[in-house]
Amino acid sequence: MTALVPVMTVGELSDFFVQAFPVGDHDRLGRIDSIEPGFVRLALEPDSSNLRPGGIVSGPTQMGLVDRAAYAVILAHIGPVAMAVTSNLNMSFLRAVKQQTVWCDAVLLKLGKRLATVDCRLWQDDPANVVGQAVVTYAIPG
Amino acid sequence: MTALVPVMTVGELSDFFVQAFPVGDHDRLGRIDSIEPGFVRLALEPDSSNLRPGGIVSGPTQMGLVDRAAYAVILAHIGPVAMAVTSNLNMSFLRAVKQQTVWCDAVLLKLGKRLATVDCRLWQDDPANVVGQAVVTYAIPG
Amino acid sequence: MTALVPVMTVGELSDFFVQAFPVGDHDRLGRIDSIEPGFVRLALEPDSSNLRPGGIVSGPTQMGLVDRAAYAVILAHIGPVAMAVTSNLNMSFLRAVKQQTVWCDAVLLKLGKRLATVDCRLWQDDPANVVGQAVVTYAIPG
Amino acid sequence: MTALVPVMTVGELSDFFVQAFPVGDHDRLGRIDSIEPGFVRLALEPDSSNLRPGGIVSGPTQMGLVDRAAYAVILAHIGPVAMAVTSNLNMSFLRAVKQQTVWCDAVLLKLGKRLATVDCRLWQDDPANVVGQAVVTYAIPG
Repeated sequence: MTALVPVMTVGELSDFFVQAFPVGDHDRLGRIDSIEPGFVRLALEPDSSNLRPGGIVSGPTQMGLVDRAAYAVILAHIGPVAMAVTSNLNMSFLRAVKQQTVWCDAVLLKLGKRLATVDCRLWQDDPANVVGQAVVTYAIPG
Repeated sequence: MTALVPVMTVGELSDFFVQAFPVGDHDRLGRIDSIEPGFVRLALEPDSSNLRPGGIVSGPTQMGLVDRAAYAVILAHIGPVAMAVTSNLNMSFLRAVKQQTVWCDAVLLKLGKRLATVDCRLWQDDPANVVGQAVVTYAIPG
Repeated sequence: MTALVPVMTVGELSDFFVQAFPVGDHDRLGRIDSIEPGFVRLALEPDSSNLRPGGIVSGPTQMGLVDRAAYAVILAHIGPVAMAVTSNLNMSFLRAVKQQTVWCDAVLLKLGKRLATVDCRLWQDDPANVVGQAVVTYAIPG
Repeated sequence: MTALVPVMTVGELSDFFVQAFPVGDHDRLGRIDSIEPGFVRLALEPDSSNLRPGGIVSGPTQMGLVDRAAYAVILAHIGPVAMAVTSNLNMSFLRAVKQQTVWCDAVLLKLGKRLATVDCRLWQDDPANVVGQAVVTYAIPG
């Protein structure tokens, strides 16, 4: 397997998201926290609009975060190709997500020429206690 | 297979969503359009906050709609059990979703005592031209 | 959406499978029953090697059938391209599958140039009583 | 998160599989290699009946292995409950699987009272070069 090398910094990637998605508070959608080879970590600060009955963070909020994290780890390694599109997303909701910082660790399982597949893990207090897991496939324009 | 019989009307289900999710414009999240045995149809009117680069409706918007539609078709048949929670959601993004009405047809594949599984289809101009498909599993509190 | 037109007959497709997969009893793997535009139906006759504890048809047998059915409906519409490969398969196991004929209905949700997505439904006594459902994505060689 | 403690040895788990699945060569289906807290590793030796066109290990063989590995890691931690059944399996096929030993590492993401969710990774030469990934959910009888 070819070694994965990031080509964007946290600042460059954050700026790209602000320009590509002009609407929205990016702390509420997921801030880029760190980039490493094959890896990006995001942090989301949920507010009341992210909650569902029971006061827990909603499924759509979680899915928005993993979709964004998958996009981020791909762009971090291929550069700002805005037109990469999600092809498939499979999410398992494992534990209630509390209204506090939600971390999302995205790892590239494969970065192919046409498809990229990313594993995403959500956690709060302890990275070993995964509250949600997703596999996201993006199609990369030819 | 036992016949499925709805126990809530469109009005009752719509009221439940407004009370359970006090934040948000419900036309933008997905309005309940019709209920039939084993079936619920929703309609979503996307605004600019639902778009992604390219001017198409974002993945998280689509996933929020199918999650809501799956929840709706389950509640329509078991009554307003707010604490049913999504266990798994798998979504295939098939075609670009334009900024016009997005219809979502949710069909109960199985309504068990502990798990319910729902097939969701998104379409715009023609129900036969599916733009997105999802299978959603909810856990029903015992 | 462009109309889908099959380009292979049941006999041609059956012969292709026998040649491409020289090992195995094809009635036990899934016989091609019928082909229609955008649609292929298979039939599998489970034997004792397909069973799991409880005397029900095993998950791997069901997944083998849906993978084969998805491959069949794609090839029926693009011709015998042996090197199409499964990219993703998501299966929901809904009800116990008895040791009698298992039917699998495969419907093309999208036949793109690079990816094809297929919905598969397993049933036994009644097509409306789905015992398993899968969505299968194949990558089509360029 | 409660610490996970295995309650079966490699020998006990291997014996259970032989008794529960009387048909089949268990080296070809996946031998139990090791058990650790929250973890089981299997090894499969593919023969010609496991191949598909191109001489690579077939999708159904891979899915059978991950389903077995998920079952194994659950039973290793709750004891030999034969009637646990697969509820959902989502598999991403990432790279061609060669006709040599296929390793499968199964990790418990969550072991609940009613549902268990397992992450499975297939690899051959290098654990870091994942050739297939799956998430498997089992329903545990009450």
